[in-house]
Amino acid sequence: MIKKIGSYTIEFENMPAIVGFGSVAGKKESEGPLKDCFDKIFYDAHAGQESWEKAESIFQKEAVAIALGKAEKSPKDIDYIFAGDLLNQCISSSFGLRDYNIPYLGQYGACSTMAQSLIMASVMVESGAADISVCVTSSHFCAAERQYRFPLEYGGQRTPTAQWTVTGAGSCIVTQSDKTHPRVAKATVGKIVDMGVTDANNMGAAMAPAAAQTISTFLKDTNTKPSDYDAIITGDLGMVGSDLLCKLLEEENIDIKDKHKDCGLLIFDCEKQDVHAGGSGCGCAASVFCSLILNRLKNQEYRNILLIATGALMSPTSTQQGETIPSVAHLVNVISK
Amino acid sequence: MIKKIGSYTIEFENMPAIVGFGSVAGKKESEGPLKDCFDKIFYDAHAGQESWEKAESIFQKEAVAIALGKAEKSPKDIDYIFAGDLLNQCISSSFGLRDYNIPYLGQYGACSTMAQSLIMASVMVESGAADISVCVTSSHFCAAERQYRFPLEYGGQRTPTAQWTVTGAGSCIVTQSDKTHPRVAKATVGKIVDMGVTDANNMGAAMAPAAAQTISTFLKDTNTKPSDYDAIITGDLGMVGSDLLCKLLEEENIDIKDKHKDCGLLIFDCEKQDVHAGGSGCGCAASVFCSLILNRLKNQEYRNILLIATGALMSPTSTQQGETIPSVAHLVNVISK
Repeated sequence: MIKKIGSYTIEFENMPAIVGFGSVAGKKESEGPLKDCFDKIFYDAHAGQESWEKAESIFQKEAVAIALGKAEKSPKDIDYIFAGDLLNQCISSSFGLRDYNIPYLGQYGACSTMAQSLIMASVMVESGAADISVCVTSSHFCAAERQYRFPLEYGGQRTPTAQWTVTGAGSCIVTQSDKTHPRVAKATVGKIVDMGVTDANNMGAAMAPAAAQTISTFLKDTNTKPSDYDAIITGDLGMVGSDLLCKLLEEENIDIKDKHKDCGLLIFDCEKQDVHAGGSGCGCAASVFCSLILNRLKNQEYRNILLIATGALMSPTSTQQGETIPSVAHLVNVISK
Repeated sequence: MIKKIGSYTIEFENMPAIVGFGSVAGKKESEGPLKDCFDKIFYDAHAGQESWEKAESIFQKEAVAIALGKAEKSPKDIDYIFAGDLLNQCISSSFGLRDYNIPYLGQYGACSTMAQSLIMASVMVESGAADISVCVTSSHFCAAERQYRFPLEYGGQRTPTAQWTVTGAGSCIVTQSDKTHPRVAKATVGKIVDMGVTDANNMGAAMAPAAAQTISTFLKDTNTKPSDYDAIITGDLGMVGSDLLCKLLEEENIDIKDKHKDCGLLIFDCEKQDVHAGGSGCGCAASVFCSLILNRLKNQEYRNILLIATGALMSPTSTQQGETIPSVAHLVNVISK
């Protein structure tokens, strides 16, 4: 069963286990600090397909295949798949996963989708609705650029606060607790936070207040402090958003600086790789969590971490209509076993 | 707790109750057969906003407000809100719900999103993760037309198989069972089904095989037959898809003709209102379920029904890239009390 603790946090009494995980990444990601962490690199941005969108579907399919393989499971063993991405109508997910023949529940939390999908997969397992659930999310730099910003051929200049959409995907297999794998202990689902930021080239600043609110809520609900965790890992706040997050939490007398890491800053060497403020996208938190982070949990380097994936819930249409950028952040507390 | 029955169906042991529901609709819907069923009519397609997209957000906000009012609940009583829509990046939901300050989980199942959200809201309540969950979905004819098809000003001709996107929204409040309200008994989450249909003006044909698969799975899993239910209600198959559904099930010796209704055919008088094959959109199943259907369950006219909302998981981009239309159908079994 699941227990509510505090105002907004839930505790999984049996703590579902992540028994398999897989990550795939693109060429640029393979040249960054995590080059040896990913399970598979796609050096061709088209992944042998006719379009970047179709390539992104292949990333999801492959990430799931790798995760299933490591968990020694076949698609027919899976009760539910939770998936999402950034493309309009989440087509990377629906086209990438249609051949698996698994009951499908599409999720949309923008770049927070990995944490959201992991929470929902854990709820299904803990409630008895599923023996095994899968979650997967992805993003693709080229597909995202042309959908959200400019055609790549235009060669638009990027602002210093802009982030670079990660080309990659990550997938987890969640099942009954077995005490030999990383386990999902607690979770906090975030509220929509909108502080009035309108600059679509500064997502980090738009999303930081959502992350701050969710982290602060979780710490209060669980009566814990940052030093109780080995790492507090945000999804894709980048440089600007990470600084802002630490400052916002400082105002509440919460100091996470020693513990904070951001997947968008782990995946790229921002200066050398010319990615400005860092990585972003559904595939950022997914590919880093399903490689570096889960490996560290597996080998006990981390024993207790928080993953907070953040999402900017806007679209080019809302921006064109003069709207601000509402954001959300979902938190998952994962222990090593 | 939740129990798996058969291969893909789940049973809610305590059967969460739908203690409040609200529906809103547009002017055209107010001229159809369900004119007296909706809680609120927006005669202005802009709902006082500057754009149709912003109007759609107002529909969601209002549907939730009405449902909360009927349940005698305030937003601060709610643990989770599950929401989705058809607009890119689901902006009707994120902008419509941001002021409610409720933990938010965006869902994407195209026109199947109402059933999906109701299933997830029920899972949260039954598992103990929530005391009260809300679900809401919407669509808007004008916003959908310009995003999926043509600018309205173009005055494009519609094919005979085309459906008319419903302008409207529906919301339910789901909480612990109390035996005086309609209750969620069982559910079947659908798999992605793609029979190779490529005509984006014939969604009914694309989605019917998904509906047939989910209905057939549910009946097998529960060892029941169509005559055990007062009504078997699909979301928005329209005329073409409804005929096809009945034929596909007949091939499996399942005869639903006497029991079958389709929200897309209930909401409009297809001939008089010139909507060709019927209504469609996330707001179609939502506004009909949260008015006519739940009212009939409440007053015992229906005692046991199946709602099967279907979704076409494509986008204009996937269609332009020559892709077929993958579909999904989720089923919820609701009893009168």
